[in-house]
Formats: sequence, structure tokens, C-alpha cells
Amino acid sequence: MASLPNGAASASSAAGGGGPAVVDKEVDFANYFCTYSYLYHQKEMLCDRVRMDAYHSAVFRNAHHFRGKVVLDVGTGSGILAIWSAQAGARKVYAVEATNMAEHARELARANDVADIVEVIQGSMEDVVLPEKVDVIISEWMGYFLLRESMFDSVICARDRWLKPDGVMYPSHARMWLAPIRSDLAENKMEDLEIAMHDWNLFVEDTESYYGVNMNVLTKAYRAEHEKYYLKSAIWNNLHPNQVIGQAAVIKEIDCLTATVDEIREVRAQVTMPIKLDMTRLAALAGWFDVHFRGSKQNPATQEVELSTAPDVNGGTHWGQQVFLLTPPLKVNEGDNVKVSFTMVRSKENHRLMDMEFTYELHESSGKQLPAITTKIYLE
Amino acid sequence: MASLPNGAASASSAAGGGGPAVVDKEVDFANYFCTYSYLYHQKEMLCDRVRMDAYHSAVFRNAHHFRGKVVLDVGTGSGILAIWSAQAGARKVYAVEATNMAEHARELARANDVADIVEVIQGSMEDVVLPEKVDVIISEWMGYFLLRESMFDSVICARDRWLKPDGVMYPSHARMWLAPIRSDLAENKMEDLEIAMHDWNLFVEDTESYYGVNMNVLTKAYRAEHEKYYLKSAIWNNLHPNQVIGQAAVIKEIDCLTATVDEIREVRAQVTMPIKLDMTRLAALAGWFDVHFRGSKQNPATQEVELSTAPDVNGGTHWGQQVFLLTPPLKVNEGDNVKVSFTMVRSKENHRLMDMEFTYELHESSGKQLPAITTKIYLE
Repeated sequence: MASLPNGAASASSAAGGGGPAVVDKEVDFANYFCTYSYLYHQKEMLCDRVRMDAYHSAVFRNAHHFRGKVVLDVGTGSGILAIWSAQAGARKVYAVEATNMAEHARELARANDVADIVEVIQGSMEDVVLPEKVDVIISEWMGYFLLRESMFDSVICARDRWLKPDGVMYPSHARMWLAPIRSDLAENKMEDLEIAMHDWNLFVEDTESYYGVNMNVLTKAYRAEHEKYYLKSAIWNNLHPNQVIGQAAVIKEIDCLTATVDEIREVRAQVTMPIKLDMTRLAALAGWFDVHFRGSKQNPATQEVELSTAPDVNGGTHWGQQVFLLTPPLKVNEGDNVKVSFTMVRSKENHRLMDMEFTYELHESSGKQLPAITTKIYLE
Repeated sequence: MASLPNGAASASSAAGGGGPAVVDKEVDFANYFCTYSYLYHQKEMLCDRVRMDAYHSAVFRNAHHFRGKVVLDVGTGSGILAIWSAQAGARKVYAVEATNMAEHARELARANDVADIVEVIQGSMEDVVLPEKVDVIISEWMGYFLLRESMFDSVICARDRWLKPDGVMYPSHARMWLAPIRSDLAENKMEDLEIAMHDWNLFVEDTESYYGVNMNVLTKAYRAEHEKYYLKSAIWNNLHPNQVIGQAAVIKEIDCLTATVDEIREVRAQVTMPIKLDMTRLAALAGWFDVHFRGSKQNPATQEVELSTAPDVNGGTHWGQQVFLLTPPLKVNEGDNVKVSFTMVRSKENHRLMDMEFTYELHESSGKQLPAITTKIYLE
């Protein structure tokens, strides 16, 4: 063995470079700060205007849901949603946070004069005992492609234990979307893969000639490792709307008031997406989500608010979209239909990550139908 | 909450960027591959010429230690040391590896025609049961600044359980070094810190004006978080020998044949390092290590080999050196002496990481003595 780079000493973790010459400053930086217990990471989320504006509007334009009410904020982080709930008139806000960020949330509540209303409780939502049932559950639980990180499980648990029968959820609804896109990402990734393999081949030659060991038997495994990384892993991206070449489809709708963990543990969908652009190339599918603040049937929102992470010409969110490369890509034309069967299950090794399978088949407007292709993609 | 970047979904892990616009490709790449179970990471180590040449020479120039003998390779990784041991004439090599890399090591042994000699055993060294005692233990267990990752614990365990009384250790000895250095790293890091704080201050203003929440109470904690990262964390670097401005000192010697876990769990040293350059600045201390292949007293090496990770004009190793910033730096002159008290203990949260404390005091050649300064540094 030898030394794993800084930040990667724990068995399951992972980090930077390691080659003799290079240490990537950004790698170290990102590795260091990106857990929920760092203010740096909280700041990244607090700087996401789309996210912030949506929650801010949802709360203050529907202040009647909060005025005089008891609110539970699941995974409060820095405490911003709890503080807004208090500012909107809540009688009491329980703000639950598992990490040490809880202490900062407490300070922030004090500094913003809502410490008498916002009670920060450090602990996991599954264990916490509240002194009363709540009127509202507010939470920003969404991961990449909505369900990555599986934090919605904790919101469901909170709802089942603590929400009054006529209580409301913020957000109240969520949807997962899939859309056909064009993109140069596949070419770039293919090129990266070939560079990596070229480099490997030189390494095999060198190791044979300098050290008398033939490594060639591992070439296939090395390629598989890099193919998984470059071609079979979901790619974070903020797409331009022009990259969407057909009609996006909803593949999952969630009613936050009634959803169960069983319902989200496995997502299956069959959708047909009409292509709307002529003479282009279906290079990938993109996945994103939106959430809605509608209140409940008995107690609807005054003004419905939507938080969308769809490709947007005005720029994106920190969630971006997830791009799933289709290898090989398909030449498509206006009027063609792409039929996609989609399954997503939680990864066996880590239930917060997802394994996906896409079967896609092109129905050309001419009537011709191409054979179905199946590809696995990992959301890691 | 919101979404942690790819690769960071498990609670303890950490990963890239997250801001609305940027995803650092290198961050993702490094995060993905840098555990011992990826060939990419094995390749990084196998490309370290200093490391490879030292072990290769140690084995083949001392083939009498291997010829007809039983060898144990602790943490064999891709299996290179086990294969060399077989090529040098070992009768049997037990190659123990905890990760799935074991399967690749097995393939490699087969492809290099030593599968009858090299037996790859997948498991943790602490649990493995061998059918016999061994003549040689070979291992590449060294982490940053020698002891990070605490893998030597497993080698000690292997030795106490499986090494014959007259057996030899490869390497047989190890040393930790400390040296006074000049460097611009402190200025760069101070500047990075100020940029981060400037950015934070803008964020505080914006959050107040757009969202009615005053975040200023967290400014101190944000600075502390970033000071720890920029100024109080060991920095990986391959230094130029000209950056070393005084005499390096050995702060720990380890005899691999007799060392105990107790002996390495805590490292304490008091050293005095004479400054050898005039009118310069003591900006940091650097830490590195070397290991030696000397065989044992009864059974010495024919040719002693050294693997050093000291600053070298011919380029470095993947270990580099660890730079510990001294804040504030001191103006020093030839003939001055720097006295350093050093302690290093394992971090409470993760025993593979290290917490260090340095107390440094300058004894000028004029007889003047500056007050001692104490600084904590984290090797993460």
C-alpha cells in the first residue's frame, strides 16, 4: 500500500490526485468542506437563489399556514427555514438537525430574535421526541435527481410521527422528470477514456521493461473501471434549454402527505418522448425534479409556489440536472418517438446512492423501429 | 438540507464544489478513484519510481533473503511486492489484501507465472490465519508523514503472529524527519483566506437584504473553519531542497522488528535545528520520512537500500512532504537555532488521521531568545 491523499484515510472515503507531481487544490478544498457540518457547504446552498426564492415565497406568501402554528423543520442545517417560519408568525418551530450545524442554527436564531420561537434539537429525526404534534412540516430534503441521499425517508418518518391529521407539508408535492437531450458530453468522455487507456498502455510497457512484471492482464479491468466512471455514471450539468430536443416526461409524482418509503425505494416508469427537433442526435437523457408548495386539500395555499430544477436560460441551481449518456447515441428527427423504460433502485452498498437502468428504443416517424438498447447508469 | 455533491452521500464522506455553476471534473475524478480498491489508484503508486526502485532493489539485491523462503506481503494491493518476492526465489508468498483488489492481484500472479508461489488471501491481516510462520514480512505500509493511516498497526500484528524468531522485515527501519523551511505557501493561504472572508461578507449582506436574515453572528465560526483548512492543516508539497534552510532532525526512529503499537500511537520529540541560511524566513516546518532495508542483526542485507521522501532536486514521490505552517513566521539568520517541541496523537474521530502540536522558539546567534509560540496542525 501507500498513502491515500488527504481526506481519504477512512476506508470508505475518497479524494485527490496522488500522482508524484500534482495536488489539486480544488480537490482538497471541496473534500474538506463538503459535508453538512461545514458553514462553507451551507453557504453554497444558501447562495442558490432559485432554492432560496422558492422557499421564501412559499413561506411568506402563505403566511396563514404559519401564523400561530407549530412547525417542524426536518434537517434544518443553518436554520434558515425555521427562522423564516418564525418570522412568518409561527408560535413554535422545532428545528431538527443531526450534525453539529445545530449549534450554529441556535446562534442564528438568537441573533435574529426568534430564539424564543425556534427550538433547535440536535439529533436524528428518527429518534427525536417532540412535546407536541405539529401543523406544518417544512424541509429541504431534495438530493440530486430528487431522491439521491434518501433524505425523504426522514421526512416521511417525521410526518407519520408528528404531523397533525390536518397538517400541511412544505413542499407538498414533488416530481421527477426525464427528457431527451443533445450534448457533446459523450464525445468528451469517450476522448477522456481513450486518453486514460493510452496512459495505461504506456504504464504497462514501462512496468514490463523496468520492473519485469506484465500488467496487461489488468487492462480489461482498468477499462471497465474507467468506462463506469466516464460513461456509466450520471453527470452533473446545468443544461441550456436548447439542449432539450423533445418533450420531457414525468416519471414519478410524489404526494408528500401520503408517500411511503416503499413507494420511493424503487422507481419504475415507461414513457414515450416525442422528438421536436429535426436532424439532431439523441446523446443522453437528462433527469431533474421540481417541488410544489400547494398546502393540502382542506388547507390550500393562497399562492402556489414551484421550485424547478429544469434547464433554464436564466441559469441553474446547485442541483443542476443529471445527464445519463446513451451509448451509442441515436440520430433522431422531428416526429420520432423515444420510448424509455426506466428503473431506479438504491445501491446495495450505500442506500443513499442509486443504480439505474434505461432501455431506450426509437420509433421513427417513418414507422421504422430500431432495436431496444439497455444501459446501466450509476448515480453516485 | 440540499444535495451533497456526487460521491459525498454517505454521512462521513466528502466531495466536490456544489455552487450553482461549477463542477470540478478533477474533483469528481479524484473522489471516484482514490481508494485502494481502484486500479487507477494502484497505478498512481506503481508509477512512483522512487518507491518502485527502492523496493525492487531491496528485493533483488538481497535475493538471499527470499530464495527458498516463505514471505508474507501485508496489504499486497496489486500484488507487485509478492510477485517480486516470488521472482527473487521465494518458495511461498502469502499476499494479504483486504479490498477487492485481491482478485486483480491473483490475476496478475497467474499472468506472471507465479500463481503456484503467490497465494492471495482476501481479508484483514488481523483475522487471517496462515498455515505456517514466515521468514520475511514485506509491506509498503507508509502513509503521509509515515504514520498517517496507521497501517503499520497491521504490520506489527502480522509480525507478532506470523514472523519466525529469526525472520526479517522489509523495510526493517523507518525514520520521521522535521526540517525548517522557507516557503510562500503561508502568504498564498492567507490570501485565499481573505478572499473567502470577503466572499462571506458579501453573502452576509445579500442574505440580510434579500431574505431578511442576519448571518453575521456566524462570521467568526466561518473564519475559524477556513483558518483550520488554510492555515492549520498540513499541506502536501514536493519541496525543492533549496527551501530547506537548516538542519533536518530525526524525530522518531522505528525498528520494524521490535516496534509496538504503543510506541507509535503518540510521537513526542524535542529537537533543535540550526539555521544554515542568512537573512531568510522560517515560514514552516516540513515533515517527511525514510525507510531502510537492512535485514536483521543475525541476517543482514547484502546491500542496504534506502527509500527517502526527503525534498529532492530530481523530483518527488507521491508522498511528497507535509508542510506545517508557522504563524507567524520568523525572520532567521545563519547560526540561529530553532527549538521545536513536537507531539502527534491520533485524531479522536478517526484514528487514521493525526493531530499535531508544535511549540517553536528561536534562539538567535546573538544570544537573544524569542518567546515560544504554540500552534496546532491537523494531518487530515
